[in-house]
Amino acid sequence: MEFEFNMVNNNIYDLIIIGAGPAGLSASIYASRYAIKHLIVGTVLGGQITETHKIDNYPGMEDMSGFEFGQLWGKHAKKYGVEIIPSLVQEIEKENNIFSLTLADKNILKARTILLATGTKKRELNILGEKEFLGKGVSYCATCDGFFYKNKNVGVIGGSDSAVTSALYLADLAQKVFLIYRKSELRAEPFWVELVKKNNKIEVIYDTNVIEIMGKEKLEKVKLDKSYNNSDELNLNGLFIEAGSEPSVDYIENLGVETDEGGYIKIQKNGATNIPGIFSAGDITDGSDKFRQVITAASEGAISARGIYNWLRKEGK
Amino acid sequence: MEFEFNMVNNNIYDLIIIGAGPAGLSASIYASRYAIKHLIVGTVLGGQITETHKIDNYPGMEDMSGFEFGQLWGKHAKKYGVEIIPSLVQEIEKENNIFSLTLADKNILKARTILLATGTKKRELNILGEKEFLGKGVSYCATCDGFFYKNKNVGVIGGSDSAVTSALYLADLAQKVFLIYRKSELRAEPFWVELVKKNNKIEVIYDTNVIEIMGKEKLEKVKLDKSYNNSDELNLNGLFIEAGSEPSVDYIENLGVETDEGGYIKIQKNGATNIPGIFSAGDITDGSDKFRQVITAASEGAISARGIYNWLRKEGK
Repeated sequence: MEFEFNMVNNNIYDLIIIGAGPAGLSASIYASRYAIKHLIVGTVLGGQITETHKIDNYPGMEDMSGFEFGQLWGKHAKKYGVEIIPSLVQEIEKENNIFSLTLADKNILKARTILLATGTKKRELNILGEKEFLGKGVSYCATCDGFFYKNKNVGVIGGSDSAVTSALYLADLAQKVFLIYRKSELRAEPFWVELVKKNNKIEVIYDTNVIEIMGKEKLEKVKLDKSYNNSDELNLNGLFIEAGSEPSVDYIENLGVETDEGGYIKIQKNGATNIPGIFSAGDITDGSDKFRQVITAASEGAISARGIYNWLRKEGK
Repeated sequence: MEFEFNMVNNNIYDLIIIGAGPAGLSASIYASRYAIKHLIVGTVLGGQITETHKIDNYPGMEDMSGFEFGQLWGKHAKKYGVEIIPSLVQEIEKENNIFSLTLADKNILKARTILLATGTKKRELNILGEKEFLGKGVSYCATCDGFFYKNKNVGVIGGSDSAVTSALYLADLAQKVFLIYRKSELRAEPFWVELVKKNNKIEVIYDTNVIEIMGKEKLEKVKLDKSYNNSDELNLNGLFIEAGSEPSVDYIENLGVETDEGGYIKIQKNGATNIPGIFSAGDITDGSDKFRQVITAASEGAISARGIYNWLRKEGK
């Protein structure tokens, strides 16, 4: 099948999707099927999921590396003819109901609607070994990777709801969970804290920071800034860093898109934001009960594509 | 990995998932990863999607028959050890916060929570040839199958929003769309009706019923109960029947689960219904902006599994 896409600057697309992760690619597949003239701007085919060493919770696609996963999704979207511009959007301006997107290379693209699908970035701790052992014991997502630490010893860094629920989740699988927190009291909901205290698989190490992650090929131990059981080293098979995530919204600050207290974009049921013509999907939004998974992002992408389709019809293509 | 499941009647599961379609199987995969002791009751592995001759809008899995699709999803869920009971639930009773499910064979299963994921059934017209040409020209889903009728002649039966938007969608792809309605005025929103009237690819045939679907191996023409252009036969490559869908909720009538005006189960963001311990996901719900697709059903399944996990923790497993 044929769609006519081209990069002439004056050409106005019906839709530009920003982000090439699960939300953006899913939206593109649906947009193509709705015959919406669109393109994708995104640097990483598959988005953040490509960082996951193994994904096995996207129904129908078993046991796949994050990289392979991203490639398959990209192939699926491209089959319908969409062009993916491997660039970043630096700025967006709206004039006469048309959005102008300035890319990193200063090229300008124009569109009637845009879909913000740039996901989140994990907050890093910037400790020694953190980058080196990513995917080799270090993870930022217990739900994604916890399953691979059955009967092993794992650590969780953090004291938030997210850290504490990760520790509880891991305790169902792992042999031992060390919850390492820099303060003297967990800041998660009392309910969760109570469960942690009752769970004899979880040991909380208070007032302590991990200062180095060590090992040969895989993570083997971490160094603490304070002795625990007479040692400043702790043997671990896995370490989950729960310092939070941040929505990637820097490039839209001028647009007045409404966000929640965490900076996530507020969306309506059809993926619309508060700004006419701007839709959003995936990890960057407050949708899907804030359960940020490939399957939920892809669903939001599909729903948004339908929302955009209806919007374009009403506004007159 | 090992989970211990058995069918002893007195055994109380943490969760019983009713329905083995995308919502149920996705919920099961997530439930397994949350180590929730559960099973699935469902007769068709893959659910309604198995009726689709080809699915190509589930990101990452290109061009697949509905049957193959269901098999892959079933394999994925079963890999985590879940048992799927190929039966129907006839009745559910709640006593002392435990649900008792009576199956068609009179076996009784007990659970702390249940997930209603039995989807919808398409309303059939019960006309000659309707069953025979299902998947061979006859379809109940324009979004699923419309794409395969590029530059062909198709018919849509119905006058509702759903029928009219299907006709508009198909007009972007097909050569000609005949919208065949039994009344003298379309009952869709005026906005949509206006678009239909402006669209010169769509011809509306009023006050007319299709009474027979004919062809050799594939649908070739339909018989009308009233002449159109001096003929009571109309040549078509595809026929989309939009007589509506009905949520499959017969077996829960006694439970007091709240539904919307269409009979779809009202769910909260986490998949919970108004009845404690009863969750719901997929086409049977009012979720996902009522966009009923495999991807949205699977997302709701995942979200519900997390909702159930949190609920079980709070209620004490």
